[in-house]
Amino acid sequence: MDYNVLFWFVPAASLLALAFAWYFYRQMKKESEGTERMVYIAEAVRKGAMAYLKQQYKVVIVVFVCLALIFAVMAYVFKIQNEWVPFAFLTGGLFSGLSGFLGMKTATYASARTANAARNSMNSGLRMAFRSGAVMGLIVVGLGLLDISVWYLILDSCIPADINNTGIKLCIITTTMLTFGMGASTQALFARVGGGIYTKAADVGADLVGKTEYNIPEDDPRNPATIADNVGDNVGDVAGMGADLYESYCGSILSSAALGAAAFAADGGAMQTKAVFAPMLIAAVGIVLSIIGIFSVRTKENADIKSLIGALSRGTNISSALIVIATFAILYLLGIENWLGLSFAVVVGLLVGIVIGRSTEYYTSQSYAPTRKVSEAGKTGPATVIISGMGLGMLSTAIPVLSVVAGIILSYLLATGFQLGAENVALGLYGIAIASVGMLSTLGITLATDAYGPIADNAGGNAEMSGLEPEVRRRTDALDSLGNTTAATGKGFAIGSAALTALALLASYIEEIRIALERTDPQGLINGKPLMEANIVDFMHHFDVTLMNPMVLCGIFIGAMMAFLFCGLTMNAVGRAAQKMVTEVRRQFSEIKGILEGKTEPDYSRCVEISTRGAQQEMVLPSLIAIAAPIVTGVVLGVPGVIGLLIGSLSSGFLLAVFLANAGGAWDNAKKYVEEGNFGGKGSDTHKATVVGDTVGDPCKDTSGPSLNILIKLMSMVAIVMAGLTLAYNIIG
Amino acid sequence: MDYNVLFWFVPAASLLALAFAWYFYRQMKKESEGTERMVYIAEAVRKGAMAYLKQQYKVVIVVFVCLALIFAVMAYVFKIQNEWVPFAFLTGGLFSGLSGFLGMKTATYASARTANAARNSMNSGLRMAFRSGAVMGLIVVGLGLLDISVWYLILDSCIPADINNTGIKLCIITTTMLTFGMGASTQALFARVGGGIYTKAADVGADLVGKTEYNIPEDDPRNPATIADNVGDNVGDVAGMGADLYESYCGSILSSAALGAAAFAADGGAMQTKAVFAPMLIAAVGIVLSIIGIFSVRTKENADIKSLIGALSRGTNISSALIVIATFAILYLLGIENWLGLSFAVVVGLLVGIVIGRSTEYYTSQSYAPTRKVSEAGKTGPATVIISGMGLGMLSTAIPVLSVVAGIILSYLLATGFQLGAENVALGLYGIAIASVGMLSTLGITLATDAYGPIADNAGGNAEMSGLEPEVRRRTDALDSLGNTTAATGKGFAIGSAALTALALLASYIEEIRIALERTDPQGLINGKPLMEANIVDFMHHFDVTLMNPMVLCGIFIGAMMAFLFCGLTMNAVGRAAQKMVTEVRRQFSEIKGILEGKTEPDYSRCVEISTRGAQQEMVLPSLIAIAAPIVTGVVLGVPGVIGLLIGSLSSGFLLAVFLANAGGAWDNAKKYVEEGNFGGKGSDTHKATVVGDTVGDPCKDTSGPSLNILIKLMSMVAIVMAGLTLAYNIIG
Repeated sequence: MDYNVLFWFVPAASLLALAFAWYFYRQMKKESEGTERMVYIAEAVRKGAMAYLKQQYKVVIVVFVCLALIFAVMAYVFKIQNEWVPFAFLTGGLFSGLSGFLGMKTATYASARTANAARNSMNSGLRMAFRSGAVMGLIVVGLGLLDISVWYLILDSCIPADINNTGIKLCIITTTMLTFGMGASTQALFARVGGGIYTKAADVGADLVGKTEYNIPEDDPRNPATIADNVGDNVGDVAGMGADLYESYCGSILSSAALGAAAFAADGGAMQTKAVFAPMLIAAVGIVLSIIGIFSVRTKENADIKSLIGALSRGTNISSALIVIATFAILYLLGIENWLGLSFAVVVGLLVGIVIGRSTEYYTSQSYAPTRKVSEAGKTGPATVIISGMGLGMLSTAIPVLSVVAGIILSYLLATGFQLGAENVALGLYGIAIASVGMLSTLGITLATDAYGPIADNAGGNAEMSGLEPEVRRRTDALDSLGNTTAATGKGFAIGSAALTALALLASYIEEIRIALERTDPQGLINGKPLMEANIVDFMHHFDVTLMNPMVLCGIFIGAMMAFLFCGLTMNAVGRAAQKMVTEVRRQFSEIKGILEGKTEPDYSRCVEISTRGAQQEMVLPSLIAIAAPIVTGVVLGVPGVIGLLIGSLSSGFLLAVFLANAGGAWDNAKKYVEEGNFGGKGSDTHKATVVGDTVGDPCKDTSGPSLNILIKLMSMVAIVMAGLTLAYNIIG
Repeated sequence: MDYNVLFWFVPAASLLALAFAWYFYRQMKKESEGTERMVYIAEAVRKGAMAYLKQQYKVVIVVFVCLALIFAVMAYVFKIQNEWVPFAFLTGGLFSGLSGFLGMKTATYASARTANAARNSMNSGLRMAFRSGAVMGLIVVGLGLLDISVWYLILDSCIPADINNTGIKLCIITTTMLTFGMGASTQALFARVGGGIYTKAADVGADLVGKTEYNIPEDDPRNPATIADNVGDNVGDVAGMGADLYESYCGSILSSAALGAAAFAADGGAMQTKAVFAPMLIAAVGIVLSIIGIFSVRTKENADIKSLIGALSRGTNISSALIVIATFAILYLLGIENWLGLSFAVVVGLLVGIVIGRSTEYYTSQSYAPTRKVSEAGKTGPATVIISGMGLGMLSTAIPVLSVVAGIILSYLLATGFQLGAENVALGLYGIAIASVGMLSTLGITLATDAYGPIADNAGGNAEMSGLEPEVRRRTDALDSLGNTTAATGKGFAIGSAALTALALLASYIEEIRIALERTDPQGLINGKPLMEANIVDFMHHFDVTLMNPMVLCGIFIGAMMAFLFCGLTMNAVGRAAQKMVTEVRRQFSEIKGILEGKTEPDYSRCVEISTRGAQQEMVLPSLIAIAAPIVTGVVLGVPGVIGLLIGSLSSGFLLAVFLANAGGAWDNAKKYVEEGNFGGKGSDTHKATVVGDTVGDPCKDTSGPSLNILIKLMSMVAIVMAGLTLAYNIIG
């Protein structure tokens, strides 16, 4: 079989994903949104969410145009940049924005319908929410893989053939494609940071005045911030999460392709092409298996919560099991060197994802001891809740780190066939990259279970605000609580994949340096070897990227600082935006008569506006700092400084992200555990103490923590795109 | 002048320090402890503190004996260790323990006397507390330098002469001396962790029941945990801080010496000896200048708080200015190569210390906007206090990191005369190390202002419990509040010096590897060069300590994790120990009749016992993990993994330490700012919200944060001592 034919499977799979996304979307739209009140509320949330996204895209477009212009100048005036970069960058941003937009549109149409379906049975509710989540999952993987295959085809036909068989053509193609990853990253950063600030400003603001001061329940229609809170779930948890994983998904495939091209550059020809195709093919098969998994999620008509969880995990388990088998088959059929080791590397990636997910669940679910201890600490007040949550979050970093470490070493060793040595480093790094592809290959379904969460959450909000019968609300609550578990594992998954992807991107940075040198100084020697023959270790020695180079050390310090600085900025941003929301909600309660009695409707749209404006203002500074840091570091400290920066932000950022996500998740569920009637139950002092923990956890787990995932990937992407600048100009390094 | 004569200045200065310490101690002891009640309370605190220290030393002795035995087996049976190591290790531990013990003894004698002196005037109180703090400062520098000079003399006379003039003798001497640093580190870790857990268990326990539940003021004699709380200040802030800085002080001098020996090994002879002497001489002169500084701290009889601050800072400023001049003179007289560049490197180190101190003050003092914003966040409850404090803490990492980065680059460039290149790396690293010596050279007086804090704090406690007149308490409060400022800058200083020292130790690790190879495989080539001719970059290339080696990457991840894990463990330890204290205090209030009316005395000693036992139990696990991590990493991942580990823990640990210390300091002072009558003042809801912040901040700033300083240094020390083992046995790396 001609292996080139296999490539067409990639765009085919991406179109298949989009077709199924369209199908699920049409199915969902056919259903009724329920009572007039339900339609009214869903409409308000939808309008608010779309209004926000429009605002956000306005800001983002300005940033994109500026950056694309800079890239164009670099490419066409200074010739320190590939001429395709401005366009690749723009499509990456466009497709990422599109998947966030479409996913969110679906989610906002689906929530009232889920609430309405839950009036029939829990199962109908689950089905509606999950299938709508699947729209998002399939759009992300479909658009991602479509962008990748179209660009591959364009570049393959435009870049001149590799006459000397040096393997350079594929190296240029794959490193150029990496830059559309930067477009996706930039879009994702704004989506995560803006959405994260929006959602938590609304949530914290609504809770502080509504719950704490006026003692009215969550999602109560009397609370002016309640629509904004529901809008926030969509713009933060749906659009933000979607853009984040779009980026990881593309990043892992692109960096694997680039490393594959590098590892087999010497072979040139067939083997190199196969190494580039392999990650794309695994992803393509993953799409088909995700669709199978999605269809396998079904339960009996009147299933309880336990069998619902069972149904969801059955779907992802089936997809995961099948992708393992498929990977062995694909790599064997491709006839890639050491196919067995690489297949096992994919298995390692999947296992790491599962272990991190499980560990997240253990540390953040009220079914286990750690979170219950946080609840118990509430008996001695809010301070001990915070201390024990922080302690828990810090301890919870151990398993994810150790499993990522094990994943790195194992996938590296498996890919190299346990042969360490400078000549095998590229192959080993390819193994790490392909492990991250394995982890993300079934993203179609894992993202579906993820996006399910906020849809169920909003369905609950809609049911509450529309005053549906208690039985329906009980059902939507159960669906929502199931969503909390999937959201927690999804977050662990997002962090784990970000770490592996960032590592793969870091390795791709060296390849970008190679190609940049090829453009500007093709005769230069690297560690005494010709450019295209030098291996990665030669590059590291040539630029002295060792841990005793002060530039590297300083880069690592600055990178670690970036993670903390970025978190601090986003956390303060939530604080400021929430403050404005608090003031507005208080104003409405005191100025608009009859709100608290439910006689007058509060001015929801003012609150939506405040959150929107707050998020827009606050997202710019941290985002610009993230983009500027690798550029400035590169110009001042050179290549060693940039690599140090990336490693520093990756290591500290990963740890900080896990810490914040798990502490936040545990605080949330510790409160839920008390609400379930433990340690005094709702309204007790212990409950009040855990509510404080929950509020503190909000920006940790939904703004700062998840934004870090993107920070570490975006900084790598910026470094890659700016490699030419770093080489051309630098002060000390 | 024969430069060898200059060496005798080092032991002379150390004896001078000890003599003045003795003088200040005698002067203090002459004063009266005040009323019978004051004597009684001081006695109780002293007994509790001594009882705790005895308990702690019992545990520590077991650990030391075990470790010394292991080193002995390594040295005499397996021959993978220098034969002097077990003894050097033990003296390091002994001297560090001794300085903690003597400093704390002085502090516990001084607090009642300070309260009594404050009955005369504020100035007398300041003088008493500060001179007693100076005892601690001078003991630390005196014993440190004494240990260094005695070992130098012993090794110089016992190690055979360097016949081939390869410079190896001094390399062996200096790397052997590093191992007494590990003794000091181990002792310091137990002191910081144990003391930190003790003090915060007592403090949090006392606050949660006394202040929050029973609404009785701080240090009220009716609170059963109040004596334990005062004991805690001594064992945590005096003994713990002393041991920490003893370790940084010795570590910076020893690592400079080792790097000096390495940088000038090729020259052999005179220049190498001069490079080894230089840091010792700077430290020796620093002692004399510290004593001058201490004597210059004096104010008019009835000075206000502002002139008291002025007096304290005048002392440190005079010492710092003089050490700058002295350094230029010493290095010029020594005739060391590039004396001018190295002198400027010392200035850089001093400046970095000052900038970090100032930035700490800015972020944690209620005189500035950041902390006031945390107070203001209290208007919307405890959750926003926590969020804004966390945001502040994270943002506050930027200035310290950037100044350390600037310090690294500048001192490196200055030392090498702006000549980058592999052959100059050792010289550059020597420059960084000597910058850290500059920062710590005036430790005699900076530690005096530091130790002043807890003495003044205890004096306030004594005045409160003894029911002295309100005017006296007003004075001790003012002295205490001054102590908070000095403590905050002291903490910033401790963190900054730990970062630079750890970096210098990291570089010394390579020298230790060289010597270990010299012992086991003297003919082996490093990157193609003979062992003694290979420079540091050769070693990095030989072991492939580049950022693309997966062992290095995994080491970095594990190192970062160590920082978080260690913090999580210590934070949970405080939580658990405080819980026990809460239960005990509640029990006493309910079971012992008449406590709250002040008719019966509570059972103070039970609380002291509980804190002691809690600290003893809880300090073992985190300490053992810290010691085990570099050993296990070395055995599994080899030299590249260990270096990665050290860098990972250094970068993440530094950031985390600054974050926790500054967030904690800001929460503390945000509460004070409200108590000063802002945003509703004492007893308001805002005040209650900030009290929650203060309680959360306690373990952050006094247990987990400062323990990280030692963690990063101890792990480097363990790596250095275990270098032989890592080389002899490792699995993957």
